[in-house]
Amino acid sequence: MMQVDLNADLAEGCGNDEALLRRVTSANICCGFHAGGAADMAAALVWAKQNGVRVGAHPSFPDREHFGRRTMNLPEAELRAHLRYQLGALQALCAAAGVEMAYVKPHGALYNQAAQDAELAAVIADTVRGFNPNLKLMALSGSLLLAAGEAAGLGTVSEVFADRRYLPDGTLVPRTRPDAQVDSDDEAVAQVLQMVREGTVTAVDGSRVPVRADSVCLHGDGAHALDFADRIRAALQAAGISVQAV
Amino acid sequence: MMQVDLNADLAEGCGNDEALLRRVTSANICCGFHAGGAADMAAALVWAKQNGVRVGAHPSFPDREHFGRRTMNLPEAELRAHLRYQLGALQALCAAAGVEMAYVKPHGALYNQAAQDAELAAVIADTVRGFNPNLKLMALSGSLLLAAGEAAGLGTVSEVFADRRYLPDGTLVPRTRPDAQVDSDDEAVAQVLQMVREGTVTAVDGSRVPVRADSVCLHGDGAHALDFADRIRAALQAAGISVQAV
Amino acid sequence: MMQVDLNADLAEGCGNDEALLRRVTSANICCGFHAGGAADMAAALVWAKQNGVRVGAHPSFPDREHFGRRTMNLPEAELRAHLRYQLGALQALCAAAGVEMAYVKPHGALYNQAAQDAELAAVIADTVRGFNPNLKLMALSGSLLLAAGEAAGLGTVSEVFADRRYLPDGTLVPRTRPDAQVDSDDEAVAQVLQMVREGTVTAVDGSRVPVRADSVCLHGDGAHALDFADRIRAALQAAGISVQAV
Amino acid sequence: MMQVDLNADLAEGCGNDEALLRRVTSANICCGFHAGGAADMAAALVWAKQNGVRVGAHPSFPDREHFGRRTMNLPEAELRAHLRYQLGALQALCAAAGVEMAYVKPHGALYNQAAQDAELAAVIADTVRGFNPNLKLMALSGSLLLAAGEAAGLGTVSEVFADRRYLPDGTLVPRTRPDAQVDSDDEAVAQVLQMVREGTVTAVDGSRVPVRADSVCLHGDGAHALDFADRIRAALQAAGISVQAV
Repeated sequence: MMQVDLNADLAEGCGNDEALLRRVTSANICCGFHAGGAADMAAALVWAKQNGVRVGAHPSFPDREHFGRRTMNLPEAELRAHLRYQLGALQALCAAAGVEMAYVKPHGALYNQAAQDAELAAVIADTVRGFNPNLKLMALSGSLLLAAGEAAGLGTVSEVFADRRYLPDGTLVPRTRPDAQVDSDDEAVAQVLQMVREGTVTAVDGSRVPVRADSVCLHGDGAHALDFADRIRAALQAAGISVQAV
Repeated sequence: MMQVDLNADLAEGCGNDEALLRRVTSANICCGFHAGGAADMAAALVWAKQNGVRVGAHPSFPDREHFGRRTMNLPEAELRAHLRYQLGALQALCAAAGVEMAYVKPHGALYNQAAQDAELAAVIADTVRGFNPNLKLMALSGSLLLAAGEAAGLGTVSEVFADRRYLPDGTLVPRTRPDAQVDSDDEAVAQVLQMVREGTVTAVDGSRVPVRADSVCLHGDGAHALDFADRIRAALQAAGISVQAV
Repeated sequence: MMQVDLNADLAEGCGNDEALLRRVTSANICCGFHAGGAADMAAALVWAKQNGVRVGAHPSFPDREHFGRRTMNLPEAELRAHLRYQLGALQALCAAAGVEMAYVKPHGALYNQAAQDAELAAVIADTVRGFNPNLKLMALSGSLLLAAGEAAGLGTVSEVFADRRYLPDGTLVPRTRPDAQVDSDDEAVAQVLQMVREGTVTAVDGSRVPVRADSVCLHGDGAHALDFADRIRAALQAAGISVQAV
Repeated sequence: MMQVDLNADLAEGCGNDEALLRRVTSANICCGFHAGGAADMAAALVWAKQNGVRVGAHPSFPDREHFGRRTMNLPEAELRAHLRYQLGALQALCAAAGVEMAYVKPHGALYNQAAQDAELAAVIADTVRGFNPNLKLMALSGSLLLAAGEAAGLGTVSEVFADRRYLPDGTLVPRTRPDAQVDSDDEAVAQVLQMVREGTVTAVDGSRVPVRADSVCLHGDGAHALDFADRIRAALQAAGISVQAV
């Protein structure tokens, strides 16, 4: 039976956490560097546990001013310190909540830069492995970060997007382009089904590009997010695809 | 000739500022309490001036952790201090940039709480008037905050939303409800045209509710935001409605 | 042979860290809540290791605005989350640095409130034990926090102050009183020698009060701090008292 | 009759504000970038007004992590934006409190760097003048920042330190040197009297160096600060020197 994981960013202060945790199977927990804080994290862990949701760390550059979305070039030792700090902080809260911390998915600019920067990707993968070699690394399908995780001997979770369009080389259409996003929820659902069943996505030029769809990223903000999560779950179920963390 | 203003939140670190400022006619400048900072504000003011965009302050509760979205109940003296601090900070940057600060639109939880809390609304309106009685107050059409601005003798800008649905009493469908958002861009454009031309919106029960559409709020995040801004501008132009700050 | 530990607060951004770590035997590492951050912490750990200095966590209320000095009353679950977050963050950095995290000394208002509030003291002690029962708790000699640590089965480090005067009940003269501080460095040195050798301190009314001087708190700020650390070390050595972490 | 001003840093969250404002004649109000926030500022302004204390802005680099003590090299446009933001924020609170904002004294690393960096000093002076040419600039006696204020046509307040030792060239002994600080309160009082009466200070090599003692900086932290403020006031009064803002 085919299966796929649904993940979302939690503990970022958007107010949807409890409802989202009834719909996803993996929770990327913000570690307090781009939003939220310890109390938000602890609350999200309680709800994750209640719903049997897998928990991962969602570390960021230290950039509250811009929600972790701004490109940064930190000295390697500093970047490692910031990552370890965040992983350790979440680990302590997971231990107290009786929840396993299972993976790491970098946030925002850290995720995007590492997808295309082999050196940064290697530093992240090595820091994660040094912290706990049993952690998986969740990263963009086809990205250098995913490759760095594999090279470091970490388990990996290959992530795809329901609502973003892809270029012929398998990377995402940059957000600055007008065709960055899928037009409608119907299209987004269809894209997910194709990615999971065929392991391909139709790029903007019409070509079919291979992707590895271990996990689909859902957005957490707004009522529409919950609605779309319900639709995608229903569509996957109707297609006989199991929704679960892998 | 009918006219309407298009406003968006700027200097929140989303990276779209320059492109947005070529599309809107009013810029709600984040004052550093829920995101961004002085450098982002100064940069946004330069682009606002280049494009002849009207500038307003977008003050927030002091809540970077949750992007200003969390309900807070501050002592009145503290709230006034936080508002004055933000208005003064933006005023100084406007003066240096040679831009007039023309209005105030509260952000996030401050905006939403004040829409329904007459006491909070009166404190905000009085603080704005005490800072500068020539400032306008931008608030939700039909809200207690808009009424408080009028009661305080301030000019007001009545704001409507393109992509949110309305209840029969003229308030917004809460974000927690699945029908909070308009389904498609086409519907959103149609809703705006009806609001501007007829001064009404069709509520979720099908009834027509009066609204005062001085300004339409556009979202700033993502490529879709720019795309939608272009569509709404085109639709307004085609309908013979002038897009300008009033 | 008699012995005593010298401790100081580190990684608070005062710029003296490296020099201080050549003089103290225990380093209370700020965990980023009242000052500093992950990079400061990592740097301090390197120097602590080089100098064989014992490392402890120095967690605070989440209060950067007031350097952790302001009284706070957090819900218990939130306080526990904030403590765990900080302990976990430092633990991760210690593991990477190859340094053992040996104890916890709360900072500022958290330290002072817990000295006199049995309930708060018990929450702190229980949270520390839950995180790692091998951690010691460093607290004011004679305080309720020290007692809570013992009651929780934790090892404890009883702390005394060189430059603060004591009341007849063994508590510190409040900082708001004009006689809160010892007048001169000579007096401070003499007070430390008496505390270590006799286990007493002469209170402001002339009475001799028992204290348990496991560790002496040195201040880190300013050149005078380093100078005084040198003087106290020399005086202890001359008196045949070993300076070491216990 | 000779006269001198006593200044201290306020609204930094140290808890002594109200007591200090009964002792000083000028209050350097922290603008929320290195500590404190709008509520602390508003409270300090009320006490300053009650005691007839002159009010100035105490802007900092944007560096809460290190209390504004760390050297920073910001692009000029960003530095100007950060300064204007802080000046504007305090100006708005002063206006609401009915207090005049009379001068600017940079904080920490900004003060120290500008004392020795003509370019930085000129940017600060020009930004202050652009904000309000009636503001005075308070800076270290003999520093490049004081000179920049004069060159920009601003009124200046030349500041001296009671508890810091001086080099033969009139600059302060760096804090990293063991002889940076005056040994005792008696010496500090004597140094102030000499600076005010003779316009000189005795440097570490015994030479007499000219200083312009318009204002003496008092520290705000700890009970000792209040005690010393009382002593210096008494000593100045006994010497027939008027304590007042000039």
